Amino acid sequence: MTLDVSGWVNSDPVDLADLRGRVVMIEAFQMLCPGCISHGLPQAQRVHRSFDRSEVVVLGLHTVFEHHAVTGPDALAAFVSEYRIPFPVAIDRPVEGRSIPSTMGRYQLQGTPSTLLIDRAGRLRHTALGALDDLVLGVHLGRLLSESAPSPEAG
Amino acid sequence: MTLDVSGWVNSDPVDLADLRGRVVMIEAFQMLCPGCISHGLPQAQRVHRSFDRSEVVVLGLHTVFEHHAVTGPDALAAFVSEYRIPFPVAIDRPVEGRSIPSTMGRYQLQGTPSTLLIDRAGRLRHTALGALDDLVLGVHLGRLLSESAPSPEAG
Amino acid sequence: MTLDVSGWVNSDPVDLADLRGRVVMIEAFQMLCPGCISHGLPQAQRVHRSFDRSEVVVLGLHTVFEHHAVTGPDALAAFVSEYRIPFPVAIDRPVEGRSIPSTMGRYQLQGTPSTLLIDRAGRLRHTALGALDDLVLGVHLGRLLSESAPSPEAG
Amino acid sequence: MTLDVSGWVNSDPVDLADLRGRVVMIEAFQMLCPGCISHGLPQAQRVHRSFDRSEVVVLGLHTVFEHHAVTGPDALAAFVSEYRIPFPVAIDRPVEGRSIPSTMGRYQLQGTPSTLLIDRAGRLRHTALGALDDLVLGVHLGRLLSESAPSPEAG
Repeated sequence: MTLDVSGWVNSDPVDLADLRGRVVMIEAFQMLCPGCISHGLPQAQRVHRSFDRSEVVVLGLHTVFEHHAVTGPDALAAFVSEYRIPFPVAIDRPVEGRSIPSTMGRYQLQGTPSTLLIDRAGRLRHTALGALDDLVLGVHLGRLLSESAPSPEAG
Repeated sequence: MTLDVSGWVNSDPVDLADLRGRVVMIEAFQMLCPGCISHGLPQAQRVHRSFDRSEVVVLGLHTVFEHHAVTGPDALAAFVSEYRIPFPVAIDRPVEGRSIPSTMGRYQLQGTPSTLLIDRAGRLRHTALGALDDLVLGVHLGRLLSESAPSPEAG
Repeated sequence: MTLDVSGWVNSDPVDLADLRGRVVMIEAFQMLCPGCISHGLPQAQRVHRSFDRSEVVVLGLHTVFEHHAVTGPDALAAFVSEYRIPFPVAIDRPVEGRSIPSTMGRYQLQGTPSTLLIDRAGRLRHTALGALDDLVLGVHLGRLLSESAPSPEAG
Repeated sequence: MTLDVSGWVNSDPVDLADLRGRVVMIEAFQMLCPGCISHGLPQAQRVHRSFDRSEVVVLGLHTVFEHHAVTGPDALAAFVSEYRIPFPVAIDRPVEGRSIPSTMGRYQLQGTPSTLLIDRAGRLRHTALGALDDLVLGVHLGRLLSESAPSPEAG
């Protein structure tokens, strides 16, 4: 999987290719999406807190598909600061003439929140729309963590 | 009590003087305030749902004292729509050269969320900063509801 | 209102007549009733904590109408201890040949949990079966607290 | 792991040896333990609902170490019925002259609730006392599910 983004909030740019060997969770959200704020982002923060960064990396992805005019980078930066989001947040690249941004379109995300899980080899393995039980998410993570890291030449 | 506001979202202007005889709850909030979204606004919605409008009226008051640039009227309108806030929301009037808006300053609110309770005679009777228990809020409302409405000439 | 009980747990006997002038909340429960444990008893404990004893008194009433053989006084005492119930708990008097105990029958309680509110004059004013919102309970308590205490001769 | 139990509630006896090839979660509880009722048993029910029985099997284990006189088999049966516990519940065998029952002692459980996880080969792999996050439990289950079932001769 690759991210096509126009910038990052509270982090230098992150390249998914550099995260090979680890499990990556991407939380796709919008700052004005109630379910993202009540469920998706708190869950992502729990995952971020529960694992060593060498095993699981959590990233946010701001996939704005409505209210574009009031949810730009400055608004997002204020949001990320107020909610004390501790992991890097990427801004999905807007596409001229379309409401759906680039990465959201490429991976056919159906809305927010969406949770994406990437395996140690860098492949997108699970996509879930809406509220995901911690138990079910944990099982997915446990299974992906059990897989061997790819050998360097396979990366 | 009187409100000094620059506009209303999802409602025609409301004049507190017209609400004499009823108990009024004002929920002062900011759209980027986590405690307002997790506690204050849901509680205000529960009060709005629990009473006949002829007895208790709930109003929101957007008292922006930080992140002014990204929480203007258009952003607030999107927020109110996404969170399906069912009661009128006033925009506290910005004051040139100060971060604290007009009504917030006049009633010395210390932050958000703040809950204000106005009696049937139009007097501010309680102000609470932060999370207020439903039980405690209910007792305040029950006591204010037990008071007689003022006679018309006293209003 | 009067209680017809066969004993008290964690308290000397309480006479409702001695509580005239105060508001009394009675939480009718069974120790094997899931809704009592998840909702009714925690709510009663919140009320107990939120008021001065000179204003509001909380009592428990163990109204067993099923599983009598395993919910006798010894089992109840263990339950009250494990759940750290801080208010007096009365044992509703069993009635020979009936599953419904005496006080439960007299006030026609329909199940557990039931919440009963008694005014300052000693009259039963509200009975609610099942989960009661803290907000609604608070309003009832606030209204009852607003009423004058009866004059001594009226008690 | 083996269970030394004196009986089963809501199930025929279950032999752990027959569950080889599956992951088994045992929830050790007491019917008068508040943390078991608020956290441990609901979590066990979520696990029971979330997996096919051919992959994960949930069992309860009533490990009574206090209040023995009022938490015998009849009381437990009423409890299991009222709480609609859907999985088999074993009664840990009482030991003459000791408060700690047999299985609890053998596996040195420190209290209730305790959660035990057994791998596909029948080995006890995790023991956790107290509230366990769903996320953490899910990761454990996901890892155990990723392990191969033992070959029949190894069982």
